[in-house]
Amino acid sequence: MTETINFPTVPGAAPRVEDKNDLGFGSIVATDSQTRLLNKDGTFNVRRRGIGWMESQSFYHVALTLTWPRFLWACVGWYLGLNVLFGAAFWLCGPDALVGSGAAEMGGTLWRAFFFSVETFATIGYGEISPVGVLPHWVMVIESLVALLSQALITGLLFARFSRPTAAIAVSHKLIVAPFRGGRALMFRIANKRNNQLIDLEARVTASWVERGTAGIGRKFQQLPLERQRVLFFPLAWTVVHPITEESPLYGLSDADLRARNFEFLIIISGIDETFSSQVHARSSYKPDEITWGAKFQNIFNPPDAQGHLSIDLNRLDDVDAVELPAR
Amino acid sequence: MTETINFPTVPGAAPRVEDKNDLGFGSIVATDSQTRLLNKDGTFNVRRRGIGWMESQSFYHVALTLTWPRFLWACVGWYLGLNVLFGAAFWLCGPDALVGSGAAEMGGTLWRAFFFSVETFATIGYGEISPVGVLPHWVMVIESLVALLSQALITGLLFARFSRPTAAIAVSHKLIVAPFRGGRALMFRIANKRNNQLIDLEARVTASWVERGTAGIGRKFQQLPLERQRVLFFPLAWTVVHPITEESPLYGLSDADLRARNFEFLIIISGIDETFSSQVHARSSYKPDEITWGAKFQNIFNPPDAQGHLSIDLNRLDDVDAVELPAR
Amino acid sequence: MTETINFPTVPGAAPRVEDKNDLGFGSIVATDSQTRLLNKDGTFNVRRRGIGWMESQSFYHVALTLTWPRFLWACVGWYLGLNVLFGAAFWLCGPDALVGSGAAEMGGTLWRAFFFSVETFATIGYGEISPVGVLPHWVMVIESLVALLSQALITGLLFARFSRPTAAIAVSHKLIVAPFRGGRALMFRIANKRNNQLIDLEARVTASWVERGTAGIGRKFQQLPLERQRVLFFPLAWTVVHPITEESPLYGLSDADLRARNFEFLIIISGIDETFSSQVHARSSYKPDEITWGAKFQNIFNPPDAQGHLSIDLNRLDDVDAVELPAR
Amino acid sequence: MTETINFPTVPGAAPRVEDKNDLGFGSIVATDSQTRLLNKDGTFNVRRRGIGWMESQSFYHVALTLTWPRFLWACVGWYLGLNVLFGAAFWLCGPDALVGSGAAEMGGTLWRAFFFSVETFATIGYGEISPVGVLPHWVMVIESLVALLSQALITGLLFARFSRPTAAIAVSHKLIVAPFRGGRALMFRIANKRNNQLIDLEARVTASWVERGTAGIGRKFQQLPLERQRVLFFPLAWTVVHPITEESPLYGLSDADLRARNFEFLIIISGIDETFSSQVHARSSYKPDEITWGAKFQNIFNPPDAQGHLSIDLNRLDDVDAVELPAR
Repeated sequence: MTETINFPTVPGAAPRVEDKNDLGFGSIVATDSQTRLLNKDGTFNVRRRGIGWMESQSFYHVALTLTWPRFLWACVGWYLGLNVLFGAAFWLCGPDALVGSGAAEMGGTLWRAFFFSVETFATIGYGEISPVGVLPHWVMVIESLVALLSQALITGLLFARFSRPTAAIAVSHKLIVAPFRGGRALMFRIANKRNNQLIDLEARVTASWVERGTAGIGRKFQQLPLERQRVLFFPLAWTVVHPITEESPLYGLSDADLRARNFEFLIIISGIDETFSSQVHARSSYKPDEITWGAKFQNIFNPPDAQGHLSIDLNRLDDVDAVELPAR
Repeated sequence: MTETINFPTVPGAAPRVEDKNDLGFGSIVATDSQTRLLNKDGTFNVRRRGIGWMESQSFYHVALTLTWPRFLWACVGWYLGLNVLFGAAFWLCGPDALVGSGAAEMGGTLWRAFFFSVETFATIGYGEISPVGVLPHWVMVIESLVALLSQALITGLLFARFSRPTAAIAVSHKLIVAPFRGGRALMFRIANKRNNQLIDLEARVTASWVERGTAGIGRKFQQLPLERQRVLFFPLAWTVVHPITEESPLYGLSDADLRARNFEFLIIISGIDETFSSQVHARSSYKPDEITWGAKFQNIFNPPDAQGHLSIDLNRLDDVDAVELPAR
Repeated sequence: MTETINFPTVPGAAPRVEDKNDLGFGSIVATDSQTRLLNKDGTFNVRRRGIGWMESQSFYHVALTLTWPRFLWACVGWYLGLNVLFGAAFWLCGPDALVGSGAAEMGGTLWRAFFFSVETFATIGYGEISPVGVLPHWVMVIESLVALLSQALITGLLFARFSRPTAAIAVSHKLIVAPFRGGRALMFRIANKRNNQLIDLEARVTASWVERGTAGIGRKFQQLPLERQRVLFFPLAWTVVHPITEESPLYGLSDADLRARNFEFLIIISGIDETFSSQVHARSSYKPDEITWGAKFQNIFNPPDAQGHLSIDLNRLDDVDAVELPAR
Repeated sequence: MTETINFPTVPGAAPRVEDKNDLGFGSIVATDSQTRLLNKDGTFNVRRRGIGWMESQSFYHVALTLTWPRFLWACVGWYLGLNVLFGAAFWLCGPDALVGSGAAEMGGTLWRAFFFSVETFATIGYGEISPVGVLPHWVMVIESLVALLSQALITGLLFARFSRPTAAIAVSHKLIVAPFRGGRALMFRIANKRNNQLIDLEARVTASWVERGTAGIGRKFQQLPLERQRVLFFPLAWTVVHPITEESPLYGLSDADLRARNFEFLIIISGIDETFSSQVHARSSYKPDEITWGAKFQNIFNPPDAQGHLSIDLNRLDDVDAVELPAR
């Protein structure tokens, strides 16, 4: 898949530091145009070594970023696993440790011990099975405490998963080069997928490319000035625009140039979600093969309905019309 | 209601983007003066299409923004619904699955199963009814887990609803044009309705209007400079003032002009609530028919009481006196 | 206590707004030197009228700002009150609604109903008392749901009370006028009372005084420039200094002048508590009778101990030495 | 260990305040080069006196910063302690207060009371032991309430411990002086140890040293300008660089000079953890004996793997090569 990746560092004194535009990626040159720094979903295309998996993961971080089905299966596994464990403990206390309903009708003493464990863990305690003697009562004491902590843990995690601030911002799959004020501009479009109110939205776009300087090959990073970096309100959609002026690192470059220099555009959107008054972030990136040259975004707004409500059609986020581009 | 709404986009190259003042509403022209961008309660007058209702809503966001009565009814429904479900499951295990108190005195085996389910779900387990056999014990195992997760869910949501930072800022219904330093100013008044301490309050006022330029009809947005954009303390009330100087887009405009250009004033107030050290926001908007020309706000402060406490009368937030306006 | 409070507003057009320094207190003139705008504990000396007590209080805000003993008594009251209510409900179901342990030994049927309610509310369900018939089982259904919601509520509130960011910053009771770079400066001293790490501390000091201008009497507010407005670290103590230069509103004023003009110094300290990464605030205020003229703060630092630990003695926060002041 | 610590304050009027660079440490002169202001783990090397231990600690702060084993032991102790207490209370109600399973088989009436207390506290209530009479029922009422509050407390604390924002940023043990743009620079390296995404990272480096001025000995603090103070992304590693230009307080100083002046470099790193959208901080400090003169950091990046993933080896965070330094 990745064939011709070179991995030189810039020779000379303190090379990584000389690169003023290093954004934490180091002076890596990925000349294969398929290799991204930032994945489309906003995660970094990186690995960490030299630390164990355990150390790189905080339990909480994992518990929060699991998908919902996996999280629920983990709860089920935790619940059943503990009850199997404590059921076995009750069973090991001997045949007379539990009395009450006949073990036969419940499928044997092991099953009875398991069901009794559940009645204890869930603090139900019907009493149709009861513990006899000191040992099973001590198992009960321990299981109760574990149950209390488990309930606390699951309550906390469930709440944390819900309250974790997440924005659902749709970013257009297309990055376009469009006519703009007699010249050209790089544009993409974002929309708020949820009914959450986002305010004080800010977009930051960083271009990264490979450059061959006197000191060797290096990767450059440069933040691109935007025609408008912030919007106060974000009810529907926003087109982010970088005018390709003479100061732009893109000035005069063609599609082939961008591919040759292995360009990548790193996008970071931040704003305030009013539901929770918390800052939310969205990230994405574009490679040259995702750029449409000579296009403009179609109108995404629907005519107001009878009640005067404005609306947008999110399916049209990527709809563009072909247009003539000025020379540069 | 909305009769003459046109929906042109500005023709020419990349029209939406040429509009520097687009604040995420797109270049929509709502010429009906009744149509608002921002509703009085601060929500946007918008709709999203192209995504399902489910996708546009995060469960958490809905659970948090339901009214309290609806939220409590949802809890009741969840609780009863699950118990009906598990009650039916116990009942389906057969007539011998539950023993104990006679079913007759509880209104039949179905009711007994329902009440037994509640005793299980709520982890009471009196024991006056008990399960017999493997199957009902498995139903119990599942119901206990569901109950544990439900308790966790409701605890989390209840807490989140309470802790959600909300400001209760009363915004005057009237926007007034008042004499100010020999000229005119646009003013509205806000007051803190709660005993929460708000600090570092900031007001931002954006004017939006329809303009007919060389490229067609477009909606303009412009943030209005305020005589004072921030206050450090907000114990009682604050009058926000935009002086209508020659630089103001309102300079020289009459009531009729504002209506003809379909003006709307978008208000956003943000501050820090000290109880939770969290940022809070309030939004509102004014249309031309909510403007009172030639008025000044009456004193809202009461004389200090015997203990020297200052106070305001929130009922007088909208009280104004008619005054002569300077020519412009 | 407060005798000679006048309450004029500045006459003329839009008086409240002409006052550029209004900080939300309105143009109130409290000429009694005892009346404060900001109390020593940082709360505002204000009242709100025109809204009911209920509306001015959010339940959550009250539940969070109650003292701990009151909060715990509220929990006890809630718990006992609900159980009295549901106990009465069980009792009203009739003498045969509950069976099991004899009512006589529990002090009568009313007490038995109360204890049974507790066993239900707390989801214990020993089974030594059990409900009989449809009606008491429905009471149980309702009580279980109320118990579930109560547990959720108390869990949420208890957590919220703990996690509420609060700084424990000791502010010196004395505001001093000390020699400083050949002139004078206004100084007070703050110290971190807790072991929490506070960083990025910022102090803002606002002077407020009564002034008789052409338009009448008005209260002025002005933020005082500080010799150092921010400190990055706040391990121990910090002396906040306002140099009384010619630009200062205090320049050339004597103790009598400050009293005559009814000065008040409003203090707001904000910083980041690293334990929770949340912003914390502290506020206080000084009146002229709390100013010590011609003083300097004594050293608050102890000699490092054998392990080289630095330390301060918080009891000496207010210790000053008398010094000669320069002429102005 | 610390031998020759002097503790003069700068003589003259208002000495502490004259020191513009005081960062809250006061004008302490620790001439022993081993004494740090900031410990390697980021805590301050300070003590507070004049307030009791209780007052300096908020319960919540302690409960949050306990290690996990200690926190769990505290839970166990709380749980067992309360049950011993309530078990004793039930026992004191007399030999007839509890009925059911024989006390003999449970190891005596005291054990039975203890186990019954657990069944009550955990709200299990099998019913194999039950209370008889008014007094034990009242103990049950109280224990239930305490159990409810305990569950709420532990749930809240467990959640708070997890959700507390903590960054795991590895800071290189070595501070190096490296060649940089024809001169020298002070450098250290940091890496993100976790898979959390950190953005908007900011580094602030403060130099502190002892200086003998006209007014005596004092400790100076000065924030060092960095070649790059912020990075937008922090996927892997970042080398923080202070160029030693003529403006730098380090300009022309040798290793011996730094030791003689008892230099300390205080590091504070802050950023936004995207998992929780919360600000995180890391702090550390360097003393002169941790500086390597004439070194440059080795490449920490591994060659991309077959899938094009970039990676770093955290074990090499401190690996340096010796290099020739320019004259100054």
